[in-house]
Amino acid sequence: MGILTTFAKSLGVIRRASQRDFSNVGFVGLGNMGAYMAKNLIKKGYRLTVYDINEKAIENVVSAGAKGAASVAEVSKNSEVLVTMLPMNQHVLECYTSKTGIISAAKKGTLLVDSSTIDPTVSQTIAKEAEKNGLRFIDGPVSGGVVGAENATLTFMVGGSKLDFEGARTFLEAMGSRAVHCGDIGMGQVAKICNNMLLAISMIGVSEALNLGDKLGLNPKILTDIINTSTGRCWSSEIYSPIPGLIPTVPSSNDYNGGFSTALIAKDLGLAQASATRTGSPIALGSLSHQIYRTMMAHGLGGKDFSVIYQYIREEDKK
Amino acid sequence: MGILTTFAKSLGVIRRASQRDFSNVGFVGLGNMGAYMAKNLIKKGYRLTVYDINEKAIENVVSAGAKGAASVAEVSKNSEVLVTMLPMNQHVLECYTSKTGIISAAKKGTLLVDSSTIDPTVSQTIAKEAEKNGLRFIDGPVSGGVVGAENATLTFMVGGSKLDFEGARTFLEAMGSRAVHCGDIGMGQVAKICNNMLLAISMIGVSEALNLGDKLGLNPKILTDIINTSTGRCWSSEIYSPIPGLIPTVPSSNDYNGGFSTALIAKDLGLAQASATRTGSPIALGSLSHQIYRTMMAHGLGGKDFSVIYQYIREEDKK
Amino acid sequence: MGILTTFAKSLGVIRRASQRDFSNVGFVGLGNMGAYMAKNLIKKGYRLTVYDINEKAIENVVSAGAKGAASVAEVSKNSEVLVTMLPMNQHVLECYTSKTGIISAAKKGTLLVDSSTIDPTVSQTIAKEAEKNGLRFIDGPVSGGVVGAENATLTFMVGGSKLDFEGARTFLEAMGSRAVHCGDIGMGQVAKICNNMLLAISMIGVSEALNLGDKLGLNPKILTDIINTSTGRCWSSEIYSPIPGLIPTVPSSNDYNGGFSTALIAKDLGLAQASATRTGSPIALGSLSHQIYRTMMAHGLGGKDFSVIYQYIREEDKK
Amino acid sequence: MGILTTFAKSLGVIRRASQRDFSNVGFVGLGNMGAYMAKNLIKKGYRLTVYDINEKAIENVVSAGAKGAASVAEVSKNSEVLVTMLPMNQHVLECYTSKTGIISAAKKGTLLVDSSTIDPTVSQTIAKEAEKNGLRFIDGPVSGGVVGAENATLTFMVGGSKLDFEGARTFLEAMGSRAVHCGDIGMGQVAKICNNMLLAISMIGVSEALNLGDKLGLNPKILTDIINTSTGRCWSSEIYSPIPGLIPTVPSSNDYNGGFSTALIAKDLGLAQASATRTGSPIALGSLSHQIYRTMMAHGLGGKDFSVIYQYIREEDKK
Repeated sequence: MGILTTFAKSLGVIRRASQRDFSNVGFVGLGNMGAYMAKNLIKKGYRLTVYDINEKAIENVVSAGAKGAASVAEVSKNSEVLVTMLPMNQHVLECYTSKTGIISAAKKGTLLVDSSTIDPTVSQTIAKEAEKNGLRFIDGPVSGGVVGAENATLTFMVGGSKLDFEGARTFLEAMGSRAVHCGDIGMGQVAKICNNMLLAISMIGVSEALNLGDKLGLNPKILTDIINTSTGRCWSSEIYSPIPGLIPTVPSSNDYNGGFSTALIAKDLGLAQASATRTGSPIALGSLSHQIYRTMMAHGLGGKDFSVIYQYIREEDKK
Repeated sequence: MGILTTFAKSLGVIRRASQRDFSNVGFVGLGNMGAYMAKNLIKKGYRLTVYDINEKAIENVVSAGAKGAASVAEVSKNSEVLVTMLPMNQHVLECYTSKTGIISAAKKGTLLVDSSTIDPTVSQTIAKEAEKNGLRFIDGPVSGGVVGAENATLTFMVGGSKLDFEGARTFLEAMGSRAVHCGDIGMGQVAKICNNMLLAISMIGVSEALNLGDKLGLNPKILTDIINTSTGRCWSSEIYSPIPGLIPTVPSSNDYNGGFSTALIAKDLGLAQASATRTGSPIALGSLSHQIYRTMMAHGLGGKDFSVIYQYIREEDKK
Repeated sequence: MGILTTFAKSLGVIRRASQRDFSNVGFVGLGNMGAYMAKNLIKKGYRLTVYDINEKAIENVVSAGAKGAASVAEVSKNSEVLVTMLPMNQHVLECYTSKTGIISAAKKGTLLVDSSTIDPTVSQTIAKEAEKNGLRFIDGPVSGGVVGAENATLTFMVGGSKLDFEGARTFLEAMGSRAVHCGDIGMGQVAKICNNMLLAISMIGVSEALNLGDKLGLNPKILTDIINTSTGRCWSSEIYSPIPGLIPTVPSSNDYNGGFSTALIAKDLGLAQASATRTGSPIALGSLSHQIYRTMMAHGLGGKDFSVIYQYIREEDKK
Repeated sequence: MGILTTFAKSLGVIRRASQRDFSNVGFVGLGNMGAYMAKNLIKKGYRLTVYDINEKAIENVVSAGAKGAASVAEVSKNSEVLVTMLPMNQHVLECYTSKTGIISAAKKGTLLVDSSTIDPTVSQTIAKEAEKNGLRFIDGPVSGGVVGAENATLTFMVGGSKLDFEGARTFLEAMGSRAVHCGDIGMGQVAKICNNMLLAISMIGVSEALNLGDKLGLNPKILTDIINTSTGRCWSSEIYSPIPGLIPTVPSSNDYNGGFSTALIAKDLGLAQASATRTGSPIALGSLSHQIYRTMMAHGLGGKDFSVIYQYIREEDKK
């Protein structure tokens, strides 16, 4: 790339950032997370066209000021930027690459932002197809959960070119408090699944340590204080303690309701596991954490917050 | 206990704290940690009598101003407070309870502080014997390693009566920067082994996450930055990164030399495992971490810092 | 040892074997297993004196023809051979080495057979004390469970001298179908805990494989047939299938009742784990199996047969 | 399907079985396994046309009497039955479903046999495409390894209709000693990956048990004898012992060369893991076994027989 091109492009970045806007925004996938994200865009003054396979989900966001569409293709045609927030690999793949999908319907130059949490290779496959059609694609999965989506305090972990990241930044920050550029296409997904694998490991580790201490006679509250000022210190112990009553606002204090469900962290661990297998990366604790959460799902805990592991290993012997 | 007694005792506490001192201190076990701890007591003006089974270890501390003794019994006879810093359960048990050990030799009222990391039930056994002989015993294992011992920045995790803890506090803080009262006898040990189990889990988790990210194309430095501001945040990632070169002062940047050895964390995990088995507490990740460190020892890594797990799972395929 | 001594000793062996008998037998520990074992000795014509801390247990065996005793010491005094069948390390240790225990009460030359499953180092400690007092000790834990005890089809895994093993053989075979000499003192225990660790691993492995196949659409009965003629073949699949209804006589076909309880295999895994920690032997799968059974106990399955793992990982999601 | 059709078809089966033959056979994938399988078909009198991306591999089988082809399409055009033996999912998928692949080139009615070990969903995808084009497809992965391929003693685990299985049986048995019908399409793959997962678990379990026993003082040969007549009995202990020298003909007695490589069992465990994730089936031991073999590959053991786990956990501490 010649220096003039670089210069011209960087001008573009600056201009785009100063404009701080896209006029027409498309949004596909209006579930728990997506609905709040779309509504926050509306609040910030964006014009939204939205679609979901569930009509009620469309009505919900239309009532907040969006225009409803009858298909993915209809959303795609008139958007300068388009966000997708879908459950799994196959939904994302179909939404982008089917004959009536985003890639064949969108206008050249449209910026596509996939905020679903999926396998990074799927993001890379889609990005290639998008590029062939003159579209720009970034992966931007989020952390912060439903609460972060509602309060626009999500963190976006973004994979894609620096240019596209800078172009999307202001827009993304309308739905969250932070956007981090992680690297090329797929690296947003990688950042998310690696962080969440570590989160799962930490939460189980904290639960094992606190339960062991308790069984040995050490008050979990005191042990928590010690851990939080020692080398075992981690987010799961400091901010999101699995011990009921210790931190009033977290799910463990609400019978493990709300928060980040066991089923969802198991999904992310499944993505980590598939990536680890593909690259031959040993993840002994990550794999075991995955299996523990799968077993908990088999015991009916899929809908509870993932900190319910603390309760799960404490169930008293009933025989 | 009547209120007058309580009052009298509490006066004692106040007096002891204001005196801030013991005149004669005994110290048994002058290894890597113990020698530095003893020297720090000497620097703070305590009169020390010391013993170790290794004569050179005695000479080393004598040269710093201590008086050498020929036996544990000799150290015990003339000390108001006595510290032990020994490798394993059996050494501590013998040092305290053998016929010529501390408990039979020490004067009534002596305060015994065991800073070894051992099974909490051993601490409890010794405490009972000590009490029968009119002695006071607390368990006070430390965190902070050899560097903390040298710089007097250790944290003491103390199990024993509140009264004995308060009586020992000033003294302990001559060897460290902090003393925490964890609960009754043995609870200092419990706090330490639970924290260290969590530390081992976190370190392996961080290493798995960073290596997986790297294999998927995400720079470990960037991933570390993301983790450190996300839910995966923990001491092992923030303060003691296993990635060579990221934090210049930690063992990973010095070919995994110095620090907290794989052999020592494996020892602590063994204590956690024994305690978990005894109390029927499930510790799936703790157990697996233990086995991972055992396997690493079998591969010659016992002397390396425990963050060497990062390198261990990255060894390139040589076939 | 000169050839004549050897010859004389071997004569002793032959003579003892041809006599096929001890006149007076002591038995301590009349629980589920011990009561049946004692009764089988009575049936084979041995004169028994028996003791248990539970008086009803004594009455039960006395009603089958034994003489009841008031203490361990009383049993010990008049027995030529003495069997103990007790729950855990501490019971065995106390029964043998307390002031009024077997070792101080038994006559010189008495053969002591401990059939409890305990830590091999405890067997070795007791053997040393026994030898100092002119007694002979062998460890002889059994496999075969309560059914084997009732039907006298137990296998004895024996640690001790070849001479003592040969001297005990006929006697042991009165309670079982086979006695195997495993090596020196403690090696009977080692054989048992190593075998049972492998058994636990196999049973969980079989359950995981059959459940995975089932979830993928492959009938567990067909998969069992394939496994049983392939490289996955093992006792847990062939003889003791965890699938209800496949083999009518095993616990899985009786709602996982009877058989070898989850609590007991967890106990054996705890012994394996302690031994592995002491010797620095990596047992990743053994440890994880231990934790899985501990978690199952925390969920009230301690009294069910250990093949209940199959059901445990299949529980349908109730949310 | 009417009774007459059924009858006619069953006649077809009988006729096919009595003819015991296909006149023209295609074979794609002439690696370690495929070359031997193709040669065995030639020996049994089949006319073969063969293809591989590696020309030398073609020449090798041509020299044994086959006709070489220039492409997959050329092989497909003139074959009544066609076998594929390829490394991984993507190779099989491309070979069957690309524009110049088997499905577009083969004549209606051709029987397609895929003996690769792959994800059962890939087999199912291909089978659907084949059916649309009037082709018959079965999955028939094998056990028995290179030695079984050479000696025509393979076992075929077959998924597909009973009719197609019966039609292929005689043909398959020209390359092996046994063909088992496991169920519908994909069930051959399921049987193989479930069995091999259990095999991996057993081999690691045997290695842990024998090493633990050895470290505790029990001769591995004696412990093997005990295990082989006890509840720990399994193929890995009886037939394929990981202890060097115990069974002269197995890889452990040849420095772990030959046999079933660590890299291949890791591949199969990866398939099991992906299937388990997709179906939400907990496989704690299967996952951990997978990670152990991945770690061993990272240590250069990918080319060694999978029984090398015994040596891997025994490496002496070199520090």
